[in-house]
Amino acid sequence: MKKHNFSSGPAILPQRVFEQAAQACVELDGIGLSILEISHRSPEFTAVLEEAEQLSRELLGISEDYAVLFLTGGASSQFYMTAMNLLNNDQAAGYVDTGSWSAKAIKEAALFGRVEVLASSKNENYTYIPKGYDIPSNLSYVHLTSNNTIYGTQFKEWPKTDIPFVCDMSSDIFSRPLPMDRFGLIYAGAQKNLGPAGLTLVIVRKDLLGKVDRTIPTMLDYRTHIKKSSAFNTPPVFPIYVAMLNMRWLKANGGVSALQTKNEQKAALLYNEIDRNACFTGTTAKEDRSTMNATFISTDAKYDALFLEACKKADISGIKGHRSVGGFRASMYNAMDISSVEVLVEVMKELERKAG
Amino acid sequence: MKKHNFSSGPAILPQRVFEQAAQACVELDGIGLSILEISHRSPEFTAVLEEAEQLSRELLGISEDYAVLFLTGGASSQFYMTAMNLLNNDQAAGYVDTGSWSAKAIKEAALFGRVEVLASSKNENYTYIPKGYDIPSNLSYVHLTSNNTIYGTQFKEWPKTDIPFVCDMSSDIFSRPLPMDRFGLIYAGAQKNLGPAGLTLVIVRKDLLGKVDRTIPTMLDYRTHIKKSSAFNTPPVFPIYVAMLNMRWLKANGGVSALQTKNEQKAALLYNEIDRNACFTGTTAKEDRSTMNATFISTDAKYDALFLEACKKADISGIKGHRSVGGFRASMYNAMDISSVEVLVEVMKELERKAG
Repeated sequence: MKKHNFSSGPAILPQRVFEQAAQACVELDGIGLSILEISHRSPEFTAVLEEAEQLSRELLGISEDYAVLFLTGGASSQFYMTAMNLLNNDQAAGYVDTGSWSAKAIKEAALFGRVEVLASSKNENYTYIPKGYDIPSNLSYVHLTSNNTIYGTQFKEWPKTDIPFVCDMSSDIFSRPLPMDRFGLIYAGAQKNLGPAGLTLVIVRKDLLGKVDRTIPTMLDYRTHIKKSSAFNTPPVFPIYVAMLNMRWLKANGGVSALQTKNEQKAALLYNEIDRNACFTGTTAKEDRSTMNATFISTDAKYDALFLEACKKADISGIKGHRSVGGFRASMYNAMDISSVEVLVEVMKELERKAG
Repeated sequence: MKKHNFSSGPAILPQRVFEQAAQACVELDGIGLSILEISHRSPEFTAVLEEAEQLSRELLGISEDYAVLFLTGGASSQFYMTAMNLLNNDQAAGYVDTGSWSAKAIKEAALFGRVEVLASSKNENYTYIPKGYDIPSNLSYVHLTSNNTIYGTQFKEWPKTDIPFVCDMSSDIFSRPLPMDRFGLIYAGAQKNLGPAGLTLVIVRKDLLGKVDRTIPTMLDYRTHIKKSSAFNTPPVFPIYVAMLNMRWLKANGGVSALQTKNEQKAALLYNEIDRNACFTGTTAKEDRSTMNATFISTDAKYDALFLEACKKADISGIKGHRSVGGFRASMYNAMDISSVEVLVEVMKELERKAG
């Protein structure tokens, strides 16, 4: 019995992608070899890498001004790599602090230049996205975390500034269209909307690179990977292959605009129930609610165990909140069908009926 | 038809591992979820990570003095991470230059401290392993590349010194027993003898860490990953799972001593044919020949196309030499059965008969 996977990440991918990935583990496209044993310089994998880049460009409307890189190390490595490549010791970057991921990015960037925290929602436990702050004109970039998986908040509007954004988009990339020209660099751990764990997507405006004074180890310089089309060293072959399959699925399902509509429908269904149901309450400002990760708590602690038990019976998986905040969290990435959200909503209704 | 995969890496893994990996892509151990969608903090994956560490320790005899880490970034990232973590600006490390991988390691280490090249076989195009050089007693560590995939050379004896080795073991780890107490740090890209691409194994003696003065970004400090048992951030779940399956296979097949015997039998079979066959000649010093990667050339350029064509007909894959050296290379990692080497030897014999 296939579970309804509400895990925040690593997370659900399309069933068809799982099946294609499984087939390729035995044999890739009739070539007599598994995807797990082919050279990263083979024509078969070169084609995969090229298609993955092309699909990324097509789905997000990425121009040739930007490089698209398939790296490893996760968003956690980008916390320092972005600053290492884009920020001189005597320069400043602005950071908007919307939770623990931003806080980690701030800590690592401070090793390489001056960090100005432009705004923070820490005072209210990161339950909202700060708005209306000033952005000084002398900043090298403005860093944002587009979606916070832990608190369930998401930028719906992008701050007004001409300074390029550096954006951690790990948990909502490919979930909606983007004004690409506003971004100097986007990075994303793959394991939510893109692919399996072990892959990091970086989209970077090429003219921003090569301007810092420091010496950067070869592997940490984005230009190394641009020059060698993500194959300077052995890239994560299988994670890239699965991401490519997933992007094929995204395209076949109408691309990011169609997915955005679907994601908003799923989110509306769940948030309406959270607001309606007497047993639950949402934990974030309504206007900043994430379409990817809905966070909520029960209105009485006695419901918690009952709810988790009912979820388990309904084959719902990954509904517990992040260990640092508690409560519940339903992640509804691209690959989740609305029928899974309907099952969850039904469990919530049933709990309310029983609680009567 | 399954090919005989002589690729240098990413490389052959056991057929049984491919099949188990495929099954897990559809559903892991009957849990209703794919290995590609489970949380890295789930009990299922925690068990995988623990078993992978335990099997590494058991197979290589690694004591609790050492940490076993499952990272990303490949050996190429370890070229600088090792020096960044182990070498102060005013300290020196010794490097033995046995080919392009050593040369890259030297280049990156020089960003962090003094590098003394103890010996090099560059003068003879890296066709042998240097011996009989002096090792100064003031070095922080001595860096070795245990096996060179490109030139087909391998350390058979370890240099005599009390200084700990830092060793790039990407292409021969798990192929033979090791005197673990001689090593301060071992690193290995997984994609030869350990697992699929996208995983890097690091084995490090814990008392060597925390002694450099510089500030290290969180993700680049080995202590971060030791403290969080390789789950500080999202690790490469699937590559680790497949590596764990492969280590189960290694153990079931008698462990590294049994594999060493098997590897030496395969290598002897092929090298004997290279030496006997009038159409081919080996390219490395006999006493330094790698059991993993046999490099050879034809004795007349007219045989090259004939040989490649005959290999293709015999379903032999990945036999071309590295693009930087040409000729031929047969990689015979742990998972390769001797029957595949027999097929290759038969093709070589047949070419000689035809050339007659």
